Amino acid sequence: MNIYDIAMEAGVSPATVSRVVNGNKNVKDETRKKVLKIIEEKKYVPNSLARNLSVGDSQNIAFLAPDIENPFFSKIFHGLLDTANQYGYNVFMYGTNDDLLTEHRILDEIKKEMIKGIVIIPISDKDKGTAERLEKIQKNQIPVVLLDRDICQSDFDGVFSTDYEGACEGVQCLIRAGHKKIAIITGELDTRPGRERFRGYKKALKDADIKQRTEYIVNGMFKEAESYDACKRLMEIDDRPTAIFTSSNLTTLGCLKYLKKNNLKIGRDISLVCFDEIRELQYSDICLTVVDRPIYEMGCAALELLEYNFLMENKMKNERIVKKTNLLKTKLIVRGSEKYVV
Amino acid sequence: MNIYDIAMEAGVSPATVSRVVNGNKNVKDETRKKVLKIIEEKKYVPNSLARNLSVGDSQNIAFLAPDIENPFFSKIFHGLLDTANQYGYNVFMYGTNDDLLTEHRILDEIKKEMIKGIVIIPISDKDKGTAERLEKIQKNQIPVVLLDRDICQSDFDGVFSTDYEGACEGVQCLIRAGHKKIAIITGELDTRPGRERFRGYKKALKDADIKQRTEYIVNGMFKEAESYDACKRLMEIDDRPTAIFTSSNLTTLGCLKYLKKNNLKIGRDISLVCFDEIRELQYSDICLTVVDRPIYEMGCAALELLEYNFLMENKMKNERIVKKTNLLKTKLIVRGSEKYVV
Repeated sequence: MNIYDIAMEAGVSPATVSRVVNGNKNVKDETRKKVLKIIEEKKYVPNSLARNLSVGDSQNIAFLAPDIENPFFSKIFHGLLDTANQYGYNVFMYGTNDDLLTEHRILDEIKKEMIKGIVIIPISDKDKGTAERLEKIQKNQIPVVLLDRDICQSDFDGVFSTDYEGACEGVQCLIRAGHKKIAIITGELDTRPGRERFRGYKKALKDADIKQRTEYIVNGMFKEAESYDACKRLMEIDDRPTAIFTSSNLTTLGCLKYLKKNNLKIGRDISLVCFDEIRELQYSDICLTVVDRPIYEMGCAALELLEYNFLMENKMKNERIVKKTNLLKTKLIVRGSEKYVV
Repeated sequence: MNIYDIAMEAGVSPATVSRVVNGNKNVKDETRKKVLKIIEEKKYVPNSLARNLSVGDSQNIAFLAPDIENPFFSKIFHGLLDTANQYGYNVFMYGTNDDLLTEHRILDEIKKEMIKGIVIIPISDKDKGTAERLEKIQKNQIPVVLLDRDICQSDFDGVFSTDYEGACEGVQCLIRAGHKKIAIITGELDTRPGRERFRGYKKALKDADIKQRTEYIVNGMFKEAESYDACKRLMEIDDRPTAIFTSSNLTTLGCLKYLKKNNLKIGRDISLVCFDEIRELQYSDICLTVVDRPIYEMGCAALELLEYNFLMENKMKNERIVKKTNLLKTKLIVRGSEKYVV
């Protein structure tokens, strides 16, 4: 009898059972009573309690992210933390600062006594050093969940967003507005989000019979400074694009910085559709059409997946059934920056 | 012989010694050699090593903040984490969600075996529940450092910014631009930043012989929705203000949201000076004059103060000499939103 059995019996989610057990207020009275009744009937001992009884069993989750100041990562972290609190876990956050050596060093220091599970946004999906370390860690009974970014040819569980579909939809929005000269500032192509969003761009052009032009494809590496330079290169082309698709929040900021510095106006000199919302800009004159994502929920989902691994661990021991991947859906928010102006 | 003695002998900061000991790359070769030589001569055993040898001595710092998604707090957290990494500590971040009961619960759970020190941005500086818990924790040899917000009549060490002087300077900038009808959207007045920034506003008006008008003082509670309402109240006054001073980044966002919704333009309908930078807005049409702060450095300073407490602990045992307070300086950045327009 575990938390999932209780949840099924009560017809609620495991997270709700956890909330009841941990005295969280966000549960309807009726639901709370039902869950508590089943817990009593089945003489269920909540996992967190059971775990606390076994000495030396750590309640700590390690979360590794490339850049902890990026609002995208703080929002994910918020979701992770809230869900971890429900289950009674602590979360250690580590910033890898986009530096593979730092990422390796942190992974090398992780020990079973200290860390119960890992959620990681890996810097690169092609880096063997990180992949091998994570495999070793998982073999050592510490489950690993990838978040936002994948690791090639690995079988780690992961939570991602529909980057391909989202980007495709964003570029289609530009096409519908009448654009044919559409550029992209890509992200780091050694990551799933970078690659998939680029693939979405290409797909949208192809479907609309628009020829892909090499000079319209520039790399912003998901970084502000690089995206500034990328935007500069695009705007200096003689036959310059009428629209740009940006691949992330920092890509957008770099692009906006260049436009502002050169007194180029969205809706007069260039059109934009951007991946990821930038909340602060909503109250300025810049009304961006964006591909938005449930970022907070991605953090929650990663922790839930980890918890599922903990519960399965006892049942399955070393056998992993299948790689579990949760894809969270993007949503296009149209605000006018896609409009075509001659 | 501790890290401070080594630092003094080498003529460098304790953080530099720590960087050398921990193999951090950001140290000049010459400095590294000098420090290593002194360490060898004095047969100094780095604290982190010594600590790791004593079983049960935790290397974990708890960091409590009211809202972990606020970019202000993520930036502080970044400074904390970077400095913690240098000393070989882990940081647990806890979101108290502006809820006193959550804050109390987290503090109740903190145990000496788990947590070595606490950095906290307390929700309120008047709450006895939090104050008593922190005092008990500190008596139990877990040092506490307050960050950004104070606790009344306590003797905890703290890192704050020059809120009073900064706000005063911001409002003076409006006065110099010709404004006489200057309103303020205050922050939570049960916090040091809220109270001190309000005090700075009053001081600037008084020095310029401008009479304070009750209807021009509205409370935004440091929250976006409340600040939206506060801005609404100000703009609906018959003899409405020509300028608003906002008390925080979220205060500013609430204010901007109202202005945008009602098609009111900065520089035409209202002038603004704001406490705290909003980075993302720099690339929009909104060029805000802001009172900026070294936020990342505040996080670093809090961790350094904690480390200083750890080192002193062995020497002083229970006696605390004096309350140590580090005040970090604000800086006015003038960008034009203060300009007076008839």
